[in-house]
Amino acid sequence: MLTKTPHLFDDATRVSAGDSRWQGRTSEDYWAFVGPFGGATAATILRALIDHPQRSGDPLALTVNYCAPIAQGDFDLDVRLVKANRSTQHWSVELTQGGGDVATLATAVFAERRPSWSHQQAQIPRATPFEQTLPYAKVAASWVKQYDYRFVEGEPNLADRPNTAPASAFSKLWIGDRVPRKIDALSLVAMSDAFFARIFHARRELVPFGTVSLTTYFHADADDLAKQDVTRVLGVADAKIFHKSFGDQSGELWSPNGRLLATTTQIAYFKA
Amino acid sequence: MLTKTPHLFDDATRVSAGDSRWQGRTSEDYWAFVGPFGGATAATILRALIDHPQRSGDPLALTVNYCAPIAQGDFDLDVRLVKANRSTQHWSVELTQGGGDVATLATAVFAERRPSWSHQQAQIPRATPFEQTLPYAKVAASWVKQYDYRFVEGEPNLADRPNTAPASAFSKLWIGDRVPRKIDALSLVAMSDAFFARIFHARRELVPFGTVSLTTYFHADADDLAKQDVTRVLGVADAKIFHKSFGDQSGELWSPNGRLLATTTQIAYFKA
Repeated sequence: MLTKTPHLFDDATRVSAGDSRWQGRTSEDYWAFVGPFGGATAATILRALIDHPQRSGDPLALTVNYCAPIAQGDFDLDVRLVKANRSTQHWSVELTQGGGDVATLATAVFAERRPSWSHQQAQIPRATPFEQTLPYAKVAASWVKQYDYRFVEGEPNLADRPNTAPASAFSKLWIGDRVPRKIDALSLVAMSDAFFARIFHARRELVPFGTVSLTTYFHADADDLAKQDVTRVLGVADAKIFHKSFGDQSGELWSPNGRLLATTTQIAYFKA
Repeated sequence: MLTKTPHLFDDATRVSAGDSRWQGRTSEDYWAFVGPFGGATAATILRALIDHPQRSGDPLALTVNYCAPIAQGDFDLDVRLVKANRSTQHWSVELTQGGGDVATLATAVFAERRPSWSHQQAQIPRATPFEQTLPYAKVAASWVKQYDYRFVEGEPNLADRPNTAPASAFSKLWIGDRVPRKIDALSLVAMSDAFFARIFHARRELVPFGTVSLTTYFHADADDLAKQDVTRVLGVADAKIFHKSFGDQSGELWSPNGRLLATTTQIAYFKA
């Protein structure tokens, strides 16, 4: 079975099925400086689970630990259903290359989400509409080109580093695939790693950086997302602390009509 | 090797070492309604890693997936060092009982944290001092008795359910071990699951509830925590959304002098 659609995101996160061992391949389109864009890796892992014949329910939680760099080329995904309950499943995935050490370690929870009391306490942040917001033009890495970023607030200003005072790490921006693609769980997990590093904002400079661990929760199941039928989200991201070479990020991904689709948090390495 | 100290939290999260298989036992002191307090389970898993002879560095990130109920009694911890780098380690832990299915699945990142640029963007929330805040008196489950909760804001009001309008899920409270114990990574991870369920606050009633996945990031290493030398934290917790039987929680744990020690997020099942 080969999942294949015309969109380059789907090409980039394509997997071919095995029994417990699946295969994927890094994508030139989603290449970062020293390896694949972490969001593409996370989405590839999630795709293997969604496509798995034993899968039931929709993604609820995904944690991805980036253990070592992934080299250009093929990789294997060892997929294991650790525990299945009546309405939830617990999975683990290990990404390796050429039989080597684990490069990425992930756990996921899938759930058949049943009707319940529903209440969204959080409100979508105010933002200028997508159409009235300027696209972000300063694009370097290959993977960044695959997204249409439109900063409402907190556009990174790397050229202008006036003094030593830390700048705000907060950003509010529209994010869509550059070639529009309907938002699904795969793009949500990729976009949850698509915020620029908070340290770049706080320091107003590029420094060596890498996501170490990423967790995303999905607050909409496949039915909810199908009903939303959107191709972009309003994202907000912020950091609380940078200390001893590691910093955090928390983020939210909102549908334009005010529905919270996913929340995400990560801890990342930096050198500064 | 048996980790043993007089404090009941250390008794409750005691582990005995194996090679890759460690042993632990549920604690009466930290019992919840249908199983052990999830924070105690998480702390026991973290303790096995901290005590592991191959461990280097301090806890940076811990994700615990609660797959199935844990019965009263002994359990095994299958501990695996998945990948070791120069300054980080990636671990996975599976908790089983009597050779059965995995009941808890965890991944952890440890890091030797090197000096760097340091900046805490977040500020400690204003709060009345611990000494001037009333202890929370309505205590039901055994594990709740092990904590000294002092609500500054958002004390759960379960008796008074006036109408159908959702109440705020936000809480701000002091949390310490009832028998004072110096805050370390183990108590931070336990306390990150010690907030009352957000759904109880939002609904103003107790409903069936269970943490499904918990992630905690540590923003202080062992040296930092030793220097803090505190026995309680100011905790804040909130939720963004309850939908189709699952709701989120995000939280912060602050030292009284304003240092952010840990951030935590979880997704939980509820029936309402």
